[in-house]
Amino acid sequence: MTTRIIRHIGELITNDPNMGDGTKVGRITDAALVVDDARVLWSGPDRNAPAADEMIDVGGAAVIPGFVDPHTHVIFAGERSDEFEARMAGVAYDGGGIARTVAATRAANIGDLREQSSARVDDLRTGGVTTVEIKSGYELTVAGELRLLALARELGDEVTFLGAHVVPEEFRHDRDGYVALVAGPMLEACASRATWADVFCDQGAFSVDEARHILSSARQLGLGLRLHANQLADIGAIALAVEMDCASVDHCTHVRDHDVERLASSLTVVTLLPGAEFSTRSPYPSARRFLDAGACVALATDCNPGTSYVTSMAFVVALAVREMGMSVDEALWASTRGGATALRRDDIGHLSVGARADFAVLDAPRAAHLAYRPGSSLVASTYRARR
Amino acid sequence: MTTRIIRHIGELITNDPNMGDGTKVGRITDAALVVDDARVLWSGPDRNAPAADEMIDVGGAAVIPGFVDPHTHVIFAGERSDEFEARMAGVAYDGGGIARTVAATRAANIGDLREQSSARVDDLRTGGVTTVEIKSGYELTVAGELRLLALARELGDEVTFLGAHVVPEEFRHDRDGYVALVAGPMLEACASRATWADVFCDQGAFSVDEARHILSSARQLGLGLRLHANQLADIGAIALAVEMDCASVDHCTHVRDHDVERLASSLTVVTLLPGAEFSTRSPYPSARRFLDAGACVALATDCNPGTSYVTSMAFVVALAVREMGMSVDEALWASTRGGATALRRDDIGHLSVGARADFAVLDAPRAAHLAYRPGSSLVASTYRARR
Repeated sequence: MTTRIIRHIGELITNDPNMGDGTKVGRITDAALVVDDARVLWSGPDRNAPAADEMIDVGGAAVIPGFVDPHTHVIFAGERSDEFEARMAGVAYDGGGIARTVAATRAANIGDLREQSSARVDDLRTGGVTTVEIKSGYELTVAGELRLLALARELGDEVTFLGAHVVPEEFRHDRDGYVALVAGPMLEACASRATWADVFCDQGAFSVDEARHILSSARQLGLGLRLHANQLADIGAIALAVEMDCASVDHCTHVRDHDVERLASSLTVVTLLPGAEFSTRSPYPSARRFLDAGACVALATDCNPGTSYVTSMAFVVALAVREMGMSVDEALWASTRGGATALRRDDIGHLSVGARADFAVLDAPRAAHLAYRPGSSLVASTYRARR
Repeated sequence: MTTRIIRHIGELITNDPNMGDGTKVGRITDAALVVDDARVLWSGPDRNAPAADEMIDVGGAAVIPGFVDPHTHVIFAGERSDEFEARMAGVAYDGGGIARTVAATRAANIGDLREQSSARVDDLRTGGVTTVEIKSGYELTVAGELRLLALARELGDEVTFLGAHVVPEEFRHDRDGYVALVAGPMLEACASRATWADVFCDQGAFSVDEARHILSSARQLGLGLRLHANQLADIGAIALAVEMDCASVDHCTHVRDHDVERLASSLTVVTLLPGAEFSTRSPYPSARRFLDAGACVALATDCNPGTSYVTSMAFVVALAVREMGMSVDEALWASTRGGATALRRDDIGHLSVGARADFAVLDAPRAAHLAYRPGSSLVASTYRARR
């Protein structure tokens, strides 16, 4: 296999604390990185660089592990900018919310759906994302969710079944019937097409008991678990996520001290989605509170048409630093290795020897520019290992 | 001259209230736009589109007037991301502030300075900016400021002399001597190379009396006036800007009711720079307060290496909507026609017949996506009229 060396890296973020400056992000200045088509073979000071078949000189640019985006809803049709405008103006108009996207997605033919969705995945990739999780959840029928999962597998890296996104219109008067459908036939049909199951467990969505029932079925079918929890209100969803050993509990805007303690002593990652708070003008959760307690924090775009139409992880990093009390290094780690941990992956999100050769070259000498120069992508090129 | 028609525009923002929906942004849906190399010839419903030599079909995309960025400091050498990180972490370290950039800029040869600065202007242009104001202010010697003004003319559209940015190190013990230099020999040497003069009038910068003295000299030399005012504290700078009939008073973070009243009954535009509040974690001024009083509001990037390394007007629009209480239409107007007004230009910032053919085609069906999809540029292509 061809080997390739990336030379004259101004700052290499390895996320390996045994490398470089010994911090959690394992920073090496004046570095080089050697990869083959699949894996990292070597990294270290540029002056010690070994030979390789090909050489790329990045002229002092920073290199980071590829972003891992562990929470997206990128497969959908239509858009809801009118809802956004109304919300920003303080006008009571929701235009239909998730149900509107469900209607548009159901009505879209597969070609249109693929075209619109893959454009969003391309935006993420151009912005440095090398691993993207994609959820279903905008069809809410057995056949429809299967169609979305197939597209998620085609376009993304990790596939999550989210039949429990909302109760669809046709089950408005039979909520229990929909929960039974999701936990039964829908999950049975979908389980082999996904790695993960997720539930929107919140006020106005699914209750803790409903979520427990659905997640239990999913676990029996071999799926890993994740949870949307306490974005809108504290309904006890974080405790459920820990109880069920979810890989990730996402949003966590409304959180109590005992939730933080539970998370800190669990393997459940807290995935924060500041694009949602930005786009809904909601208070940001404090990442500091989780970090100071010792919980593991990840960052994600939450890309969706209602509450966070965000396709830039650099923007998420900038928001995490500006609004959530994270240091630049903490946000860098959370957007790469944190996301990997939220997907229970240890082959991505870092650049130790043997890791996947997934990385991004920045148009900047230091990775801190991702937050220092907000609103620009700053990713010059994204390298994804052969899959 | 060749004529060109842009067809199948999903939403055309003309900023001409006599066009389309009759709002301030003059929105026409299903529109077409006809231009030649220099000017707008026609706009209206696509079904009424006249013939032209060339046709561009934008397939339902939105088209807006090119952004006008009336406040940048894009010509500088070096970077100060370490200061940014320290500030975000709450650590007392300023690394030298503006003086550090002055030292780096003085030390840079013209080739390096041009390369670094033009990359930033390219970023602005790619993001839809068709008119950019550029200030000097990072050399603070007669020869140095002349060098920066020449580069500003080469790279930008409107050139502003900002010798009164800070008192340079070598005048630390002779503040009055520096003010006399700026108001005298420096302005005399620089006046023919600039259209505007600006002063950083704030706590720790120049006083109201010093600013009045410098601006008076500039006016006598035929320059238009602008002012950095009350970013850090209320020192009465807004009243000075109105007194001197400045075209624009910029920042206005600390503002009293009588300042708002003065502005509303003046021709002085309030230019807001939310990238600075984002990057310094400072409270945002309320655009609503100015708008509700009837003052004219513009938006700008304030691109500079210390407090707002921002090169995306789309990001500025998104911040103005999220953080400053502006509606999407108000932010659109402020970032286009507002900026033009802050530069006392009526040939740009709108797409009435006879206006310059400066416009941007978005990768979105509605201009509201600029705020709805924060962190992405969304500008598919920028068209600048022949100069």
